[in-house]
Amino acid sequence: MKIQQIILASTAVIIAAGSGTAFAQFKKPEDAIKYRQSAYTVMANSFSKIGAVVKGEAPYNKEDVAKNAAVVATLSTLPWQAFGPGTEGGNALPAIWSDNAKFKAASEKMQLAVANLNTVAQTGDLESIKKAFGAAGQTCKGCHDDFKKK
Amino acid sequence: MKIQQIILASTAVIIAAGSGTAFAQFKKPEDAIKYRQSAYTVMANSFSKIGAVVKGEAPYNKEDVAKNAAVVATLSTLPWQAFGPGTEGGNALPAIWSDNAKFKAASEKMQLAVANLNTVAQTGDLESIKKAFGAAGQTCKGCHDDFKKK
Repeated sequence: MKIQQIILASTAVIIAAGSGTAFAQFKKPEDAIKYRQSAYTVMANSFSKIGAVVKGEAPYNKEDVAKNAAVVATLSTLPWQAFGPGTEGGNALPAIWSDNAKFKAASEKMQLAVANLNTVAQTGDLESIKKAFGAAGQTCKGCHDDFKKK
Repeated sequence: MKIQQIILASTAVIIAAGSGTAFAQFKKPEDAIKYRQSAYTVMANSFSKIGAVVKGEAPYNKEDVAKNAAVVATLSTLPWQAFGPGTEGGNALPAIWSDNAKFKAASEKMQLAVANLNTVAQTGDLESIKKAFGAAGQTCKGCHDDFKKK
């Protein structure tokens, strides 16, 4: 093994260690991209079902909205582990890695907003659900504007 | 509109009504296929993390296993809405639609097994987790054998 290869290999190990098990769990970068996109797909489906109720396009059913809000809250915690070093690609803009602190802050804002939507959805007060849904939607949009390809 | 078309259209409406909003929520069959595959991708990731602990490849951390078991339990309830009439394709075998009662029974068996895994995971008893994980894995395999392309 050439010295350059050893240095490269060691650097990769150090980067992986620095990000906990974020990258280590995915064998290939494509696996990480597939995973995070899958999490967003499932999350968006449940979020849009709540959106249809909020917009008056679907009747309000407390149990359904509460279930979908719980799904969104659970899914909102998952994609971030799949943005480790070396997983650039898909719809992700380079700013995720070059301005990672801002991305992390945006992700936490979203998780808090959907956790609140989940709490409110369990109460069954539609007006509060509408407000919490709007606030959560803003955090999605904010992050997409800065970190997702158009 | 020809009479044949009217009959076909009416039949489609009746089938859709019979399956609730299963198909109606997806604009195109590809959307349903993407959704159910996404749900399985997210579910498999958390399930395999528990698997690594069960096989002794990763250290046991009660909180992590409990979190992953909860993710699996939540996700296990989602894919089925995306197997409505007209959504054939992807890795799905035709038996899902031709022997739908058997598929439904297999899906319910899986959901019960992972709900049990989730309950056991919250207790933190690793030996019970191992047993519940094995039982859940068997329900995955059983359904894949009969209903998923090799």
